[in-house]
Amino acid sequence: MALAIVAPNKTDNELNSWRNIFQELAPEIDLQVYPEIKDKALVEVVVLWQHPKNILKTFPNLKLICSMGSGVDHIMADYIPKGVPITRIVDPRLTFSMTNYVVMGILNFHRQINRYIVNKRLKKWDMTQPEIPISVGVMGVGELGGDVLDKVHGLGIPCFGYGNSPKTSFRHPYYYGPQLQEFLDKINVVVCLLPLTPKTEGFLNDDLFNKFKPGTYLINVARGKHLVEEDLIPAIESGQVSGALLDVFSKEPLPETHPFWSKDEIMVTPHIASITNYRAAAPQIIANYKNAMENRPLINEVSTVQGY
Amino acid sequence: MALAIVAPNKTDNELNSWRNIFQELAPEIDLQVYPEIKDKALVEVVVLWQHPKNILKTFPNLKLICSMGSGVDHIMADYIPKGVPITRIVDPRLTFSMTNYVVMGILNFHRQINRYIVNKRLKKWDMTQPEIPISVGVMGVGELGGDVLDKVHGLGIPCFGYGNSPKTSFRHPYYYGPQLQEFLDKINVVVCLLPLTPKTEGFLNDDLFNKFKPGTYLINVARGKHLVEEDLIPAIESGQVSGALLDVFSKEPLPETHPFWSKDEIMVTPHIASITNYRAAAPQIIANYKNAMENRPLINEVSTVQGY
Repeated sequence: MALAIVAPNKTDNELNSWRNIFQELAPEIDLQVYPEIKDKALVEVVVLWQHPKNILKTFPNLKLICSMGSGVDHIMADYIPKGVPITRIVDPRLTFSMTNYVVMGILNFHRQINRYIVNKRLKKWDMTQPEIPISVGVMGVGELGGDVLDKVHGLGIPCFGYGNSPKTSFRHPYYYGPQLQEFLDKINVVVCLLPLTPKTEGFLNDDLFNKFKPGTYLINVARGKHLVEEDLIPAIESGQVSGALLDVFSKEPLPETHPFWSKDEIMVTPHIASITNYRAAAPQIIANYKNAMENRPLINEVSTVQGY
Repeated sequence: MALAIVAPNKTDNELNSWRNIFQELAPEIDLQVYPEIKDKALVEVVVLWQHPKNILKTFPNLKLICSMGSGVDHIMADYIPKGVPITRIVDPRLTFSMTNYVVMGILNFHRQINRYIVNKRLKKWDMTQPEIPISVGVMGVGELGGDVLDKVHGLGIPCFGYGNSPKTSFRHPYYYGPQLQEFLDKINVVVCLLPLTPKTEGFLNDDLFNKFKPGTYLINVARGKHLVEEDLIPAIESGQVSGALLDVFSKEPLPETHPFWSKDEIMVTPHIASITNYRAAAPQIIANYKNAMENRPLINEVSTVQGY
């Protein structure tokens, strides 16, 4: 009976932090860390982050699959043994980081900081148009999107939510599915916090950009695959999109040859908008390990039908 | 009986906006705009922004002095005819701009955007230390400072106020005068929103920086003269100050030869953190013109003793 962490892209330091916190909180658990797993048949719980494709086929006795973070698309995109439940991490600290990152992006656009960065290089004192009026739309109104809307609203900035399904009640103005154009007409900042599903993959594309108000600003903090990357620079050049803050990319690390690095209107950050804190995540995984062993209900279980 | 605008540094466009709104809201007022003032003896109300020194001596019949913005230090620093009341502008839109600017600065420090700007130039994907834990201190807790504290608190970020006088009740943790070190020990972002008075001029100096926790970040959106400019770069070089966002300078526009332009750790913006909106300001000035003519109490009158 063992729990295995399969996260080959984490650094040795990060993996040691995980080892230490398991040792501290649940020394009774037989913790294995990929690739040094002694007997895969003993592993009943796996904790995954960017795991090798098809690896779940090699664990014959799985009872539970835990995502190491809040997203599960990396799990959904691969082979999953039938009937094995999947859980994700819900971390208020992760929400705090994500929201502050997004609000930073919104305010930098609002107050035109990019222009002042250029002017600083030129030693140019230009007081014209010191702010752009903004109205923010958040696509995806789960835990994270809802918090972004709360905080943006708290700053006195108009904001609107958009999602897949209708909602009978929501604390902010909300649009769904077919109301996309109505939603986009209200806003000039689009924040993508959608879950990655076959339906949302490539959703940020030329077709969508053409529905934007000209000069809309784009923030993508969800997944790289939401964006059709080759559509973005033409949309900036046509003026349809005024700029973008991107934290996620279809290939990470973003290759050195990628045109995003050298496009002034695009700000790149290295997938750091929110970082799962092992101190918040480990207790949730340990609790679910025990829940699974004792056939109790799981916390933060993911619907394998909806994919989030 | 006339009202004169004396704001020689405003552009023709800006002055025309003021002319138009007076025409729209109070066509009965005889509006004069410096330097084309017909008869200074007829002027009973002046509206000032960066006026020529000693000009108030040339208006023999003043009944009211209005600042065109929220600050009055430009008036207090010059000759004022005895007994003539002074008013300032209170503009919720100005508070909105100022707060969003300050929150932008706080979050850019928190999420290390400066480092990502450099990394983007180098096409470098570096995920280490994606955020710095922050705790914000606001010096000056009037209209503007209070709003900054409310909004920072709303984001879940610890924050503290500091002012000249003790307060029996305030909605955030508050320190005054002699409790300076206690206040500084709690924070690693200092926001200066103090009024400019003889007591606060040069308050941001080497002495203060040495009381900071090492690596504290400075935001000055009050007045250029709060900062002893030559003390800042040495404090950055010693690590006492990690960086600064400055919107105001002792000489504006900031001269091309000024070392702040080329210091990476200092972000310069051209006095745009808050811009008084003539649409909000003009009705307040017109109301006070009428109040003064009819000897009614003024709105937003400034105490000429405290200077704010």
